[in-house]
Order: sequence, then structure tokens, then C-alpha cells
Amino acid sequence: MKKIRAAVVGYGNIGRFAIDALEAAPDFEIAGIVRRSIPADAASSPYPVVTDIQELGQVDVALLCTPTREVQKHAERILALGINTVDSFDIHTSIVELRRDLDKAAKEHGAVAIISAGWDPGSDSVVRALMQAAAPSGITYTDFGPGMSMGHSVCVRSKAGVRDALSMTIPLGTGIHRRMVYVELEPGASLEEVTAAVKSDPYFSHDETHVMAVESVAALRDMGHGVKMTRKGVSGHTHNQRLEFSMSINNPALTAQILVGVARASMRQAPGAYTMIEIPVIDLLPGDREMLVGQLV
Amino acid sequence: MKKIRAAVVGYGNIGRFAIDALEAAPDFEIAGIVRRSIPADAASSPYPVVTDIQELGQVDVALLCTPTREVQKHAERILALGINTVDSFDIHTSIVELRRDLDKAAKEHGAVAIISAGWDPGSDSVVRALMQAAAPSGITYTDFGPGMSMGHSVCVRSKAGVRDALSMTIPLGTGIHRRMVYVELEPGASLEEVTAAVKSDPYFSHDETHVMAVESVAALRDMGHGVKMTRKGVSGHTHNQRLEFSMSINNPALTAQILVGVARASMRQAPGAYTMIEIPVIDLLPGDREMLVGQLV
Repeated sequence: MKKIRAAVVGYGNIGRFAIDALEAAPDFEIAGIVRRSIPADAASSPYPVVTDIQELGQVDVALLCTPTREVQKHAERILALGINTVDSFDIHTSIVELRRDLDKAAKEHGAVAIISAGWDPGSDSVVRALMQAAAPSGITYTDFGPGMSMGHSVCVRSKAGVRDALSMTIPLGTGIHRRMVYVELEPGASLEEVTAAVKSDPYFSHDETHVMAVESVAALRDMGHGVKMTRKGVSGHTHNQRLEFSMSINNPALTAQILVGVARASMRQAPGAYTMIEIPVIDLLPGDREMLVGQLV
Repeated sequence: MKKIRAAVVGYGNIGRFAIDALEAAPDFEIAGIVRRSIPADAASSPYPVVTDIQELGQVDVALLCTPTREVQKHAERILALGINTVDSFDIHTSIVELRRDLDKAAKEHGAVAIISAGWDPGSDSVVRALMQAAAPSGITYTDFGPGMSMGHSVCVRSKAGVRDALSMTIPLGTGIHRRMVYVELEPGASLEEVTAAVKSDPYFSHDETHVMAVESVAALRDMGHGVKMTRKGVSGHTHNQRLEFSMSINNPALTAQILVGVARASMRQAPGAYTMIEIPVIDLLPGDREMLVGQLV
């Protein structure tokens, strides 16, 4: 069986876990890692480390593990080479636009882009769509946590007097969240002033927020996260249909695993850009299709 | 917008709920109901009631709501007319074979069949496949109930001395189930003998089974059901990823709603036969695709 040759673009948390997930996949071969610059210890990597994907020879698909705001730039450049891309772009309000732009780029070069494929957006989106199909009228709530919110943590770190910070998302149900903010203060900084700055920021002003000073933010870090989605709705004319999905997971490990699944799926789609709700779930899995149908249906 | 013209074939529980779900769907028109014979009160139905689907004029898709063992016969006859079919065929061990047979019939006549589309097999299958993609190594348990098992109830009714029976499935976790069997005995029948006959039947012999005599089985009937699926597995090299999906639902109402979703999806697939894990979940939903991506992803 010819293996799928994948490149990992970006080597932060998700990039590292993507290498793990590719190593565990029976049908993939790691072409190499693309980084902004070559680190001093690159020679000790079992895979080629380069600054340009074209140095890796033939590549079927690139797993974009860059910061979300750099996804589009990398995707357009790589799709132009006729290489499929997958990403976990997570700015919910810009997904439709990214899909439109990458659809054009992908079709132009006979390639496939699967976007916003992590766990939310991503696998959660598939469950949300399925729940809506099962009970078309009704309300779905998505409750995140407990787990770190990267966006909120970055926001707190930008405040004057803050050396390091971590914002935990605590689910209170019905889509309402508490923010537990842990800050390491600069010498002489006032917790009261930092608290006021955090609570008035649009990132926090609508949520119950608690700010606490700690000795070491590093000592609190944990990549665990969770989600619970509930829908109560109507099938046909029948009310009170109740559906629930929940997970307790290592965040970057799951994101990376989903990226590998959609990388595989990208090999089976017609040129264009897709979100996860637009591709059959069977395409995420390796192996013979009749066997999968027999095992999973 | 041109509506999808659907026929309901079979008018038991699921057929009745299918009419409900079609009535609630914005993009469907009910062509009529196909029954084995025309009942005396057919004139009071708001929809044509016929014995042959060809009497209904143009039909885009037929929702097969017949007993599971009659699905293939009806599907092959209707696909031969170039009409799509959807069913909730639920004999897990025969799904691969049915898919193969209907794939041939569907392709021959340029039609689409979506098979085994209820909640299990069906929407549960989609969640099972997604969970496996999220954590490829690990174990998924599917726990059913509490709810009536049709197959088990029919089995008990076939025993000598039993006038009516109902078998409830009680989930004990890790895929292990208790069977609570309620029987209405014929005059003079022995509960002891019925119990022995039930417990030694292959349908029950592997499960903890309790048989009880009741005055009226009719008084116990309730179409509620439930399921809980759990997976604990490994994403990449990261263990203890935990995922869970559960529902508490009216059984025929959900089955019928899913049938309407796949009837819609059948209009978007290339000729052939599919299970639900082989079609994008977005195709189950009505409405503009960009709008759905914006709302659900």
C-alpha cells in the first residue's frame, strides 16, 4: 500500500502532537517538518526539518499547525503547489470567509483544503450538525472546560503589570462560563488594577471572572480540556428528545489526531475547500470501507 | 424552491412518525402513503393512500417504513423505477450484504439508496466512527436502554403459553444488558415453563434475564428509549482520551426524523448505496450550505 506523505507545518504544541499521531497512523509517512527557522538541534530529529515545504520532495498533504491567524497565508501558498492542506483554524466568525477563499485556491490548483478541523470547530461541529438533524427544532448548548483558554490567557498577558497568566474556562451550563484567571505579577504591580483591567476587557466583561495572584503560572499548566454539548428538541412533532455529547481530553493531542484524520480524508475529496461537516466520517478512518461499515454501522 | 416529493412505504409506528417529520420539514412534499391494502378509513387521510408507488405520480424518494426483513424487496423494486430509497434496516450482521446488493440496483437505475439509517444503526454509527477517528486505539461500549426491544419481545411472544409480551433492555454498562421480560400468560400456562423457554433461547441465554407475569402488557408500553456510548482511547501517543454520547428519546420519532434527513441527503449523492457514515452530515440538513457552515462549524 502506498503511504500518504505528510508534512507538518509549524512545530508548537499541536505540531509535536501531530508527529505523534502520524507515527501512530498505519497509512502515513512523515515527509518532514517545516519551521520558520532551523533550530540548533534539528540534526537530532528523525525527520527532515526545513524552512520551505518544497525541500521535502513529493508531499501529498500539509498539516498546518501554525497560529490560527497564519493559516490562510500558509494554506494559499501550499495549495498553489497542488498540495492538500488541513488546518484547525478556530476563529468561528471567519470560517465561512476562509472556506470561500481556500475553495477558490484549491480548485485552481486541483487540491483539497479541509479547514477548521480540530475539536471545536471540528468534531464538535459534526456532532452539532447530527444533533440538529435528529431534532431539528430546539436548542443546543456547548459548554467548554474545565480547561485553559489560549485566547483569554494571551489577553491577560497583554495587561500592564502581568508577567504571565493563565485563564481557565469553567462550564456553568447552558453555554455560560466562569473565567478563573491566575496571574504572576511584575514586582510592584497591583492586583486590584490588573483585576480591573481584565474585568473590563471585552474578552471577560460578559462572564463571571475571578482574578488571583499566584507564585508560578507555569506550575498550573495542564493541557486537559473538556466539552459538553446538550440538545433538547423536537423530532417531527415529538418533543423532549434529549441528546448529549461530552469529552475529557488532552487538547493538542485530540486536535492533532483530528488533523491526521482529515489529512487522510483530503485524499478522497474532489478539489475544493471543506469543513468537517461536509465530509463523510468514514473518510477519517484507515482501512477497507466494507470492513469499516461492518464494524461501525 | 422545488420541494422534494416523498412517499412513505409502510404505515406502522415508523410510517406514522415519518408523516409527522415530513410535515415538519420545510423542503418536502408528501406524495402519499403506500400500504399492503387500502384501509376502510383511507378517504379521511390528507394524503393519497395506494398499494403501488407508481400510482403516486412523480416521486423523488421513498421512505421504507416496512418490517426490516422486507426492506430489500421493496428497495429493489423502487430503485428499479429510478426512485431513491432510504431505510432503517437494523440487522447489523447483514448490512454489508444489503449495501452491496442495493449499490448494484441503485447504480443500474441511476438512483441512490441510503441504508440502515435510524439511530442504531444510523446516527449512533456516525458518532462511533467519529469517536474512533478521535482516539483510534481503544474500546467503544454501546449501552442501550432503558427501552423496549422489538426483536426480544417478538421472540417471547412466540413461546407456548404467551399471549403478549414485552422485553425491556436495561443497560448495565460496558455493553452488558439485563432483560426484563413482562408476559401475559394464556389461561393455564405455567410461568415457570415460559421462564425456562425464554431463558434458554439464544436471544436471552447470554444475558441476565428476569421473567414476570403481568395482567396487561398493553399497560406497560412506552416508546421511549435511550443509548449511551463511551470510548476511552488513545490520540497519537496520548492515552485516557474519554468521549461519551447519550440520548433519551422517543424511538420511532427519532428513527423517522433520521429517515427524513437521509431522504434529503439522497438527493445530493451520486448513484449507489450508502450507510450514514458515508455521507456528509451537512447533507441531512435543509438550507443554504454557507449558512449551515456559519451556524454549526
